[in-house]
Amino acid sequence: METLSEARAFGGTQGVYRHASAVTGTDMTFSVYVPPHAADQRLPVLWYLSGLTCTHANVTDKGEYRRACAEHGIVFVAPDTSPRGSGVPDDEDWAFGQGAGFYVDATEEPWAANFRMRSYVEDELPGVIASEFPMVDMTRQGITGHSMGGHGALTIALRNPGRFKSVSAFAPIASPLSCPWGEKALSGYLGADRAAWADYDACALIRDGARLDNLLVDQGAADGFLEGQLKPALLERACADAGIDLTLRMQPGYDHSYHFVSTFMSDHIAWAAARL
Amino acid sequence: METLSEARAFGGTQGVYRHASAVTGTDMTFSVYVPPHAADQRLPVLWYLSGLTCTHANVTDKGEYRRACAEHGIVFVAPDTSPRGSGVPDDEDWAFGQGAGFYVDATEEPWAANFRMRSYVEDELPGVIASEFPMVDMTRQGITGHSMGGHGALTIALRNPGRFKSVSAFAPIASPLSCPWGEKALSGYLGADRAAWADYDACALIRDGARLDNLLVDQGAADGFLEGQLKPALLERACADAGIDLTLRMQPGYDHSYHFVSTFMSDHIAWAAARL
Repeated sequence: METLSEARAFGGTQGVYRHASAVTGTDMTFSVYVPPHAADQRLPVLWYLSGLTCTHANVTDKGEYRRACAEHGIVFVAPDTSPRGSGVPDDEDWAFGQGAGFYVDATEEPWAANFRMRSYVEDELPGVIASEFPMVDMTRQGITGHSMGGHGALTIALRNPGRFKSVSAFAPIASPLSCPWGEKALSGYLGADRAAWADYDACALIRDGARLDNLLVDQGAADGFLEGQLKPALLERACADAGIDLTLRMQPGYDHSYHFVSTFMSDHIAWAAARL
Repeated sequence: METLSEARAFGGTQGVYRHASAVTGTDMTFSVYVPPHAADQRLPVLWYLSGLTCTHANVTDKGEYRRACAEHGIVFVAPDTSPRGSGVPDDEDWAFGQGAGFYVDATEEPWAANFRMRSYVEDELPGVIASEFPMVDMTRQGITGHSMGGHGALTIALRNPGRFKSVSAFAPIASPLSCPWGEKALSGYLGADRAAWADYDACALIRDGARLDNLLVDQGAADGFLEGQLKPALLERACADAGIDLTLRMQPGYDHSYHFVSTFMSDHIAWAAARL
């Protein structure tokens, strides 16, 4: 692991790191905020998965998470959203290809070799964090994310019962099976057989029996993607049918931007802290 | 004034605006955060002047000022650091020309026509704010800034006694007369006669009799520009000699970046709120 930058922030250290990923076959960049802590202290970790077009940098620059992480003593990890590079396949559509990995392990060509963000985020990067950041207590993990990253957080938590003591999302894509972004990405990465998509759809996973103890979702009521892509009502119905304790907060006037995410970030960190 | 973007943030509105400046002869972009407030409420305003290479966007993205401004009910205005555009002169040095206006009214060619950031920030933009943001109470103004913008905040406050009820700075250039950035900029914009520079040097203004009631300065102790460019000891001596109540906080481990600024931003907003 190579350190690209480290800076003191809110009493802790905001770092940006790069490593050669065996899973994606590329270098991958991620950021980690380590809050102030005693030398022998072990800390819980909150994973934040980013949305379409984003890298680690968007939330690192604009997410305003450091103050709350410092207060609660939480490590904050922000991975990239896809493999990148001139040798990596891409697409003209900003909602597909580089910057839009959708947290799936692709099976279709030309994506299958590199676009394995499920395995990267579920398996490889946690191993890197556990070995390179020994203050992290991997028995206390929470996960959250924004938009495509909210979809990632929900589906990864649902597929790994017991791993995450806290789950939340900002304006998640509730059901990739049921929106144009998801149809394009899942058909491209996984092929035409929609049965293979269900592993990557929070609502389908819940209908198939996956469970969370509880879940916080914030959604901007003025979000331009609300009706066409995000569809929180589908998640609300799936949780109600399954008896999952969903706190869905429609936030009047808020859009899909980091102004929305940063406004409610401290609530999600407090939500995680209470469970970690 | 043209609205480039507006978004709900921390219960208020973060906007980015553009107007045709008569002073610089160019379009100028700036950001304004208006916190949540009652319809008939008048609000104090805090001016934030940015550093070398920055536009309004750096602090707007990374400054983490909105939560504290919402709590204290303060409008936050972030101007650009120079005129810009293909018809505007520039220099290969990132510390001179576009992005480096130094808050002076240039008298030398080719800069004199456009590089009038003193008049822009002191006179023209306050007029725009007063007319376009009627909730702003212009009798309650505070000013702060970072690096070159800290120099701007100090010198503008010192030259306009009584206008700013609160003055602070993050890692300001304490004395442009006494550092390479300042020598390059002031000789370029104002010519070789150093007597003309004194109006743009906080320490010289204080020695010449200008006063502030009090002043908060934060400075990262690990700032790479500390010794060669910023020189807070010069400001400390000038304030001590003049009896100005300076609170200078050396912050261990902090560098010159927005990780430093954002960490201490809420302290500066609280400092302003207590005086506005």
